[in-house]
This record gives sequence, C-alpha cells and structure tokens, in this order.
Amino acid sequence: MESITWNGEALYLLDQTRLPAEEYWLRYTNYRAVASAIQTMVVRGAPAIGISAAYAMVLAAKEFAGSPNYQSRMEDARAFLAASRPTAVNLFWALDRMNRLVQSGASVSALEEEAAAIHREDEAMNQAMGHYGAAVVPSHARILTHCNAGALATGGYGTALGVVRAAHAMGKVEMVYAGETRPLLQGARLTAYELKKDRIPVTLITDNMAGALMAQGKVDMVVLGCDRMAANGDFANKIGTYSVAVLAKHHGIPFYTALPSSTIDLSISDGSRIPIEEREGGEVSHLFGVQTGPEGVATWNPAFDMTPHELLTGIITEKGVVYPPFRETLARSFSKTEKGC
Amino acid sequence: MESITWNGEALYLLDQTRLPAEEYWLRYTNYRAVASAIQTMVVRGAPAIGISAAYAMVLAAKEFAGSPNYQSRMEDARAFLAASRPTAVNLFWALDRMNRLVQSGASVSALEEEAAAIHREDEAMNQAMGHYGAAVVPSHARILTHCNAGALATGGYGTALGVVRAAHAMGKVEMVYAGETRPLLQGARLTAYELKKDRIPVTLITDNMAGALMAQGKVDMVVLGCDRMAANGDFANKIGTYSVAVLAKHHGIPFYTALPSSTIDLSISDGSRIPIEEREGGEVSHLFGVQTGPEGVATWNPAFDMTPHELLTGIITEKGVVYPPFRETLARSFSKTEKGC
Repeated sequence: MESITWNGEALYLLDQTRLPAEEYWLRYTNYRAVASAIQTMVVRGAPAIGISAAYAMVLAAKEFAGSPNYQSRMEDARAFLAASRPTAVNLFWALDRMNRLVQSGASVSALEEEAAAIHREDEAMNQAMGHYGAAVVPSHARILTHCNAGALATGGYGTALGVVRAAHAMGKVEMVYAGETRPLLQGARLTAYELKKDRIPVTLITDNMAGALMAQGKVDMVVLGCDRMAANGDFANKIGTYSVAVLAKHHGIPFYTALPSSTIDLSISDGSRIPIEEREGGEVSHLFGVQTGPEGVATWNPAFDMTPHELLTGIITEKGVVYPPFRETLARSFSKTEKGC
Repeated sequence: MESITWNGEALYLLDQTRLPAEEYWLRYTNYRAVASAIQTMVVRGAPAIGISAAYAMVLAAKEFAGSPNYQSRMEDARAFLAASRPTAVNLFWALDRMNRLVQSGASVSALEEEAAAIHREDEAMNQAMGHYGAAVVPSHARILTHCNAGALATGGYGTALGVVRAAHAMGKVEMVYAGETRPLLQGARLTAYELKKDRIPVTLITDNMAGALMAQGKVDMVVLGCDRMAANGDFANKIGTYSVAVLAKHHGIPFYTALPSSTIDLSISDGSRIPIEEREGGEVSHLFGVQTGPEGVATWNPAFDMTPHELLTGIITEKGVVYPPFRETLARSFSKTEKGC
C-alpha cells in the first residue's frame, strides 16, 4: 500500500482524511499546497511528512529554476514547509537534506533524485525495521498499537506496522488491537484499514479500552510509531501514546517504538525540548462535523504527548533493536559520524 | 437539572441519547418500554436506572392490578426489567425493594410511594455525598472525571458531579476536565453539558489525553461514578475508568469514586464476580452513523471495566468517605443490619 507517488511532474498524495470511505488521490505541483496538505493531514506520519516535504522542495526548485533569486526563494520555500507542523523531526531532517543540495548549487534533477532517494531509503529502512522487530515478537502474539505507523505513514510498509507485517509473515501474529486514536481516528480509519486489506487479523477498540484489555491478559506486546525521539530515548508520538506506555508498564507488557534514524533528534537532550503541536479544539468537540459537547465548550487538543524513555522496553530501528541505557546506545548507533549523513 | 419525572400517570425521561443537541422528553406508560429505554440508554447511570426501574414496576402494577395472576405477572415484569442491563446493581436493588412490597400485597399507591421514595432518597444521598466529598477536594482543584456521574445519571445533583457541585459552591474548583468517554460520549454530551449549564468551568478532552494531562501536573484529583462495587471495594464503572485509575496511581493523584449505598453489592466478594456487559460493536466502529473503521472490522465493546480496590484512595458515600481497608470499612458502614433495609 502506497500513499505517496511522484511522476517527475507532480506529487500525488492519497487523501488520508477521506480514508477508509474513499481512496482519493490529490495532485500537487506547488510546494505551498503540499505544506497545506501536511498541515491539514492529507498526508501524516513522521516519515511520510518528510518524504512529501522533500518532493515539495523539488516542486519549488522547478518553480524557481532560472530565477535570479533562486537561493533566497528556495530558502523561503524551506521555511514555509518547515512551518507546516512542529513536532515530527523527519520534516526538518528531509528539508535539511534537500537544503544542503540546494546550497551546493545542485540541479533540479539532482534534487529530484535526492527526494526519490529519501523515499526509497525510507521504505528500505521500514523493511529492515520489520526484520529486526519481528524477532522480538513472541509466537501467537496479541499486539496493541496506537494511531497509524503503517504504510500510509511512511514511504511504504510501515514502521510499527512494518514490524507487524514481518511478524505476520512469520506466522507469529494472533491479533492486532488497534486503538481508534481520537480525535482524528487514524487507528480506526488507517491502521484497521491497512491491516484488513493485508488480511492481518485486527480488532478495533476505543482508546479507553487499552487498560481493560491488558488487565484481561489479552496484550503480549505494544508497538507503535514515533514523531521525534530525543538523545535519551524520550519520544513524542500521537496523543495517547503516553497513557498506553504507563498502562503497559503497570501490566509488565513489553513496550516498543519503531522508527527510522531520521526520526531521532540527537540535537536535543531529552523530551522536554520537543515542541508539542496543539491543534484547534474543533477536532475534540466535533466528530464528522457533528458537535459532541455543548456549544462553545473549552477543549484541550495536543496532537502528541511525550513518553519518557523509562517506559520503553526497546527501540526498533533499521540498524537493529536498541535497548537501555538509550543515551549511550542511541549515540553509539546514530551519531552523525557513524551515520555518514 | 432533572432527567426523570413522574406525574402519577406516566414516567417522563429526558432522552439522553439526543443530548446536548436536543432536550427531548419521552413519556412512558408501559414497563416494557422503560426496559427498552434502559437498554438503549435513553436513561443511563446506575442510580437513574434504579429509579426508572422502580417507576416501571409501578406502571406494571397499574397494568396488572385486579388480574387474577397479579403476582406472577409482576414477577414477569421484574424479570423483564432485570434483563435490561447486567452491570449496574442499582437496577436489581431497586427491583428487589419494589418486589418486597409486591410480595407483601402492597397497593399500587404504596408502590408508587416507594418508587418516589427511592427517587427522593437518591437525591438526598447525592447531596450528602456532595457534602462529604467536597471536604476532600483541595483548594483550586483541577478535577478529572470520566463518563457522566451527574444529575443526569441520578435522581438529581449527581454522585461524582455532586461532589464537584458542592466543592464548586465552596469556591474550590478551578477546572473540571471531562474525558469524552467513547464510545457513547457521555463525558462530552452529558458531563460537559451539565457543568456548562451550571457555569462550572469545564474543559473537554479525548480519553487518551488523560495521561498527558496528569504528566503536565494539571490534575489534582480524580472523581468518578460507579455501577457496582463488590465487598472488597473493587468496582465496575464505565469503560476507561480502569485506565484512568492506573494513570492516577502512576502519578500519585488521589482517585475517588462517589456512590450511594444502593451501588454497593456486599453479596459478592470481589470484582471478578461483577458481570460486565458487552454491547454491539457498531458503537465502536461507527460515530453518529458514520463508519470510522473499514467495512466489517472486528471490534471489542465492553461497556464497563473493573477497577481493583488497590487503586482507590477513598469511596465517597452518603455516610461519609470510606478509606482502606475497604472490606472492613464497607462492611462496617453498609452491612444490612446497620443499613436497616
């Protein structure tokens, strides 16, 4: 399942706000429209946001090629895209990677090749994560996940759902429980949809059922995605992740996040420094346009929460599964000199 | 705010499935229709279910008065009403209380007086709970609640929201955070509505935000309702209660349930014996008639969960706040001989 394609002229995004009711593709030839697609969550998921932003930089380069102010206009485009969403670091990582080429005077086609490489590498990293992650999935596993860290959130295959897919291919998955993930229901709309399409057994629950499910002994492991990880392993992910982490700890259930190295931000020491996006309250007070609460009720709507590293059993990456002490193990595996980028 | 009234001829229920969009009252003159109203949650909340069932027994008595099979038909009515929902013990408690009068040959007007007494006593118990509960609410309290344990769930005033109301009257409440309470959104539709109507400050959150809210130090106490409590203090309440209880424990936040003695079932030793209703999966896979997940997705939909007594700071009752060890303190306060019923 793919949600991002590029044909040399335009970027096509599967409109994730319409799933699962409709599979509707949108065509983008302007970087500003891609920024808006990121902001409105037509495309979402940290890796998918990074890939889309990379292609958006190619669209900007096509627009500004030959302009006497090419460099400054490209810088405007970078800044505009960077302002679309604050939490997922892959956005900044991809923009930085494209920007280095822009500053070195690379051609439009070189930028296009770089964006395609980011896209291709992401899927390859997902496959590697699946390989390493599947090894820690027990037999007959009942796996709880939250939000969507699947093919739709990435360049294909998925991070957390990549692990699920690889484990399923090995015959290890008895059931995946998908928390629906209010307010925008990515668990119901995207995760349950992806898994059902791939014939992986999935049961949909409301987010507040996770504790009861664990108490009944029906969860063997939790695996979910990540939007930004600090140097000590603290990480931001979709709101509700932290609640699931505390519940898993209380029940002694292994709790993993799966992420490519592009999601790791070694420049910040701990999770307190990760900016958490707050979105408009209508997402909480309304559902499918219908008002749930009374007229004018106050709301709180953080899009993400921060899970401290103490609650993490392990971090599934394209280089293997990383265990505590995370500050040391992450630095060893992902410091810039070793990563070579 | 009232949701149940009786005029001597008919029972009127405020249709809680239509709130907050519409304030629509339904008129009942037949006990079978009241059972259906309980089943479909036109009326919900353990105390409100008990009161409605008591009036339904009066409707049955009016229907069968003078019948040669009066006793057996009343027994059929009792059994029919008892089958409407399995978890809240107030239903069985109210039916038993009415049934004792039926078996003693009481008149229809005596039954009517008993139902009205159950209704009146419930509100008085709520007021007493409010009085005792408000004493444990700290100044400038930011209180998290779940589902609706308010005036709408009771004979008036509310159990958990009775405590909130009483504390607010004392100037102690800075903010109430209402978890929306999927799948049926009683927190958004009923709690936020009740509190806003009473000008008590309320902020609506999705259920999965409770952990992040606590981690940010924004919750000073949790108070919520109860559908049935076992002799050791284990209790069933709306799905999601258990998750909130674990989160409160993790953050060292006082966690209270508020309930009238009619919710305590000393006949069962612990929570494992409380039957948990499972409702149809469409409540999870749909919202306002719109499908959230993919066509035909499997769901799990327990209406309640069980919170072990170890997670409870105290139990707010009409006789005062009860503290551990609950098996002893509950028995002392609520054993039949002392309760006198």
